[in-house]
Amino acid sequence: MIFSNPKLKKLIEKYRQIKLLGETRAILGWDLNVNLPEKAAQERADQSAFLTDLMVDRWLDPEFKKLFETIVSKKENLTKEEKAMVRNLEQSAKFYFNIPKKIIVEFDETTSKAFMVWKKAKQENKFADFLPDLKKIIKLNQIIAAHLGFKTNPYDALLDLYEPELTSKKCVQIFDHLQPALTALLAKIQKSKDYRPESDLISGVLSYPKSDQRQLSLFVLKKMGYDFASGRLDVSPHPFTTELSRNDIRVTTWYHENDFRDSLTAAMHEGGHGLYEQGVDTIYNSTPLSGGVSLGIHESQSRFWENQIGRNPVFLKFLTPLLQAFYPEQLGQAGEETIIKLFNLVKPSLIRVEADEVTYNLHIALRFQLENDLINEKIKPKDLPSLWREKTKQFLGIEPKTDREGVLQDVHWSYGDFGYFPTYALGNLYAAQFTRAMEKDLDLKQLCAKGELGTILSWQREKIHRHGSLYWPDQLVKKVTGEELKADYFIEYLQKKYGEIYDL
Amino acid sequence: MIFSNPKLKKLIEKYRQIKLLGETRAILGWDLNVNLPEKAAQERADQSAFLTDLMVDRWLDPEFKKLFETIVSKKENLTKEEKAMVRNLEQSAKFYFNIPKKIIVEFDETTSKAFMVWKKAKQENKFADFLPDLKKIIKLNQIIAAHLGFKTNPYDALLDLYEPELTSKKCVQIFDHLQPALTALLAKIQKSKDYRPESDLISGVLSYPKSDQRQLSLFVLKKMGYDFASGRLDVSPHPFTTELSRNDIRVTTWYHENDFRDSLTAAMHEGGHGLYEQGVDTIYNSTPLSGGVSLGIHESQSRFWENQIGRNPVFLKFLTPLLQAFYPEQLGQAGEETIIKLFNLVKPSLIRVEADEVTYNLHIALRFQLENDLINEKIKPKDLPSLWREKTKQFLGIEPKTDREGVLQDVHWSYGDFGYFPTYALGNLYAAQFTRAMEKDLDLKQLCAKGELGTILSWQREKIHRHGSLYWPDQLVKKVTGEELKADYFIEYLQKKYGEIYDL
Repeated sequence: MIFSNPKLKKLIEKYRQIKLLGETRAILGWDLNVNLPEKAAQERADQSAFLTDLMVDRWLDPEFKKLFETIVSKKENLTKEEKAMVRNLEQSAKFYFNIPKKIIVEFDETTSKAFMVWKKAKQENKFADFLPDLKKIIKLNQIIAAHLGFKTNPYDALLDLYEPELTSKKCVQIFDHLQPALTALLAKIQKSKDYRPESDLISGVLSYPKSDQRQLSLFVLKKMGYDFASGRLDVSPHPFTTELSRNDIRVTTWYHENDFRDSLTAAMHEGGHGLYEQGVDTIYNSTPLSGGVSLGIHESQSRFWENQIGRNPVFLKFLTPLLQAFYPEQLGQAGEETIIKLFNLVKPSLIRVEADEVTYNLHIALRFQLENDLINEKIKPKDLPSLWREKTKQFLGIEPKTDREGVLQDVHWSYGDFGYFPTYALGNLYAAQFTRAMEKDLDLKQLCAKGELGTILSWQREKIHRHGSLYWPDQLVKKVTGEELKADYFIEYLQKKYGEIYDL
Repeated sequence: MIFSNPKLKKLIEKYRQIKLLGETRAILGWDLNVNLPEKAAQERADQSAFLTDLMVDRWLDPEFKKLFETIVSKKENLTKEEKAMVRNLEQSAKFYFNIPKKIIVEFDETTSKAFMVWKKAKQENKFADFLPDLKKIIKLNQIIAAHLGFKTNPYDALLDLYEPELTSKKCVQIFDHLQPALTALLAKIQKSKDYRPESDLISGVLSYPKSDQRQLSLFVLKKMGYDFASGRLDVSPHPFTTELSRNDIRVTTWYHENDFRDSLTAAMHEGGHGLYEQGVDTIYNSTPLSGGVSLGIHESQSRFWENQIGRNPVFLKFLTPLLQAFYPEQLGQAGEETIIKLFNLVKPSLIRVEADEVTYNLHIALRFQLENDLINEKIKPKDLPSLWREKTKQFLGIEPKTDREGVLQDVHWSYGDFGYFPTYALGNLYAAQFTRAMEKDLDLKQLCAKGELGTILSWQREKIHRHGSLYWPDQLVKKVTGEELKADYFIEYLQKKYGEIYDL
């Protein structure tokens, strides 16, 4: 990249070391999730904390800080790209300049170790085993929020780390708007004559070998345009995507022996994240413009591929013969309509990542309320299992029997991520609004019918991916759709789609 | 660990950072071999070189160097363990204090990238594609040797990096002693009436599914006592073992569809390395005493498990029913004697790692001569394919048809390792001498017959593993066997074993 300002050039050169340390830490994190032997948790935590230590040193390096401040004070003369770089650096610097190094390193070490504790606690369904780590993580998040500063709610400081300028007030508005619409739609679907909440195909009687599921996931990822020469598909306790370098964007999925859908939707979801990262203009490599701009926008890409494509009735028609070829005995008799309904089975359920599109955001609303209350000390960590049960009952009308399918289900808190979940809801809204814009240019139905997903990816590449972190979420949404974010597009999308499927 | 000297304590604390960076670099290296997507080679090289840069900085840190020099100058007052630490630090410091940082980082970057080039060149059988990297690696090794210093032969400086005090003169002596004995034994075996150089079981007609091979490898590794809670078994283009931390010692193997032996012997070989690392006294963690003492001793542990156990006729009798259960159609009719002969099939062959015990060291002699001549510029890198063919003919009486099974077969040169191969021959000699000592305490035959490998491991733990790098190779051999290293034990071991198998 050519810089108009030699000081900025020098700053970005120094930033490259931060980037390299970040990548190395990402490798350690990926390996922790995918490979780490049980006894090595503490050592991995030490290694990761040490890298964090080195990274913080580079942020706090007086020469770096001085360069940074000089540039921030004179940013009006910079080009558009350069201004965006400085804005992104300022956003990251909030964290490193305001939080004492000791806390940052402790946070990294704690969460690195907590992952293995959570993993085991979930396997053994023992919330009590995870509680001490969780308490520590909440405490550290409160300390971090205090150092970052906030107007009225410490949780806002955390939200802003994942989605610039997102606030708890905005979250409340969104969920207050969504909830009645979603609940009404759910009731309508459940009352329809076509509604079947169960299916023998996934009741646990039939088995879908994991190796076949892997083949299917690989096939669909290739169709989507995911580049395996700069990525991989692996297995982890919770599916995720991570950037180990610009040409090493890895996704994971999981395989459930009795439900072939989960691996496929997870692979498409993570594949969506992967495509975004793989599509950023390489001119931005090693600069603060590389990588997706925010978690909300990232989630719009993953949810788009998972839902707007993966659960699209026309795409499922395209996929049916393939599914039947992989599982002739299990699905040989299942028609397209059965497959469509199976992937769009609307039913309040316990596991967020397996939730249908209608109820999904209710899972997020639940987590948002709990996190907000935890950070504000309105509830206690030890009461989480019962609160989780209560709220699941309240939001979804059902109750988890175990903590494994309740409070222990998600990996995020073990990662230390408080304020992350609401970006999932945002992602759904962005995705619906982007899809509306896409449909002005493309005949999505026809492309799905033919499995021509490459055309869809090209549109995303051009409109969204290549920009990396050049535009902030609000700018990007306006640039792509001509409007600000509106939750109504999402509601309309659901009403139309499920209206057709269930003949409402 | 409690230190008698506070300065040494401080030095070892600082050394811990070097260790952490080394572990992190090992994670990157493991991932490079096992997982790295094709396009990410340059980026991984950058990441690894950056870590090397940070590591060299710590070696060259004036405070570290000053502490180090103070301690070296007054080491007579230290305890035995502390003296050993200082000796090991001095050995490592030779490299970091004498070679310019620029060269060390360039070496790391070059070799990180070269691995992917070699991998592809081997797959495609294109030596020319690997040649530029190989030339650069040889050049860098010559530069390194010059900086390290040597009496008469620059190759000696490199040998010493892998096995303290090993020289090309000593190598020549060993190979001159071994070669006639091995050639004579080979001729005797080939003339025996029982000699069958071929077997239908591995001629390419029968297929042994990789998943079964994996199960078998896992079974044997568990029997050996390899701890999967602090390790893993994966696949890589060339089997290897690496320490990612004290509780994360990973091994790899490979699976050849038409020969079930290769994965098993490779897994046992790497498992032997793994057991050594997993058995070091934890009191030595994060000190220069952790880890195996030298490549030669390391190789004695791997070759012991591969050969003295894995190819032991009595152990193979124990294993036969299991092999038949895994491969009922392929091996159902094969008796114990067939399996024993199959694993001990003596026959000049092209691939070193698949070579029998009798011809194995001839492969090493070949590599030793080529490396010695390359470093001394008596031959040119571009002539390696033809020289390899000539020497294979000369040493083994056969000729490789492709470079894939000739000069491109081994990963080592892509790693930058010149001077490494001779330690394999040393390992064979150490292994035979250790086995002789072991047999004074244990009834090896009976233990193998019952598959009671745990008792064998306990002996190794007590006599060898727990000491880590406390004793140098010559000290350790004397301590364990009461004698200096003698090649005759190895020759006698082969003569006895193959005398029995082939009724010579």
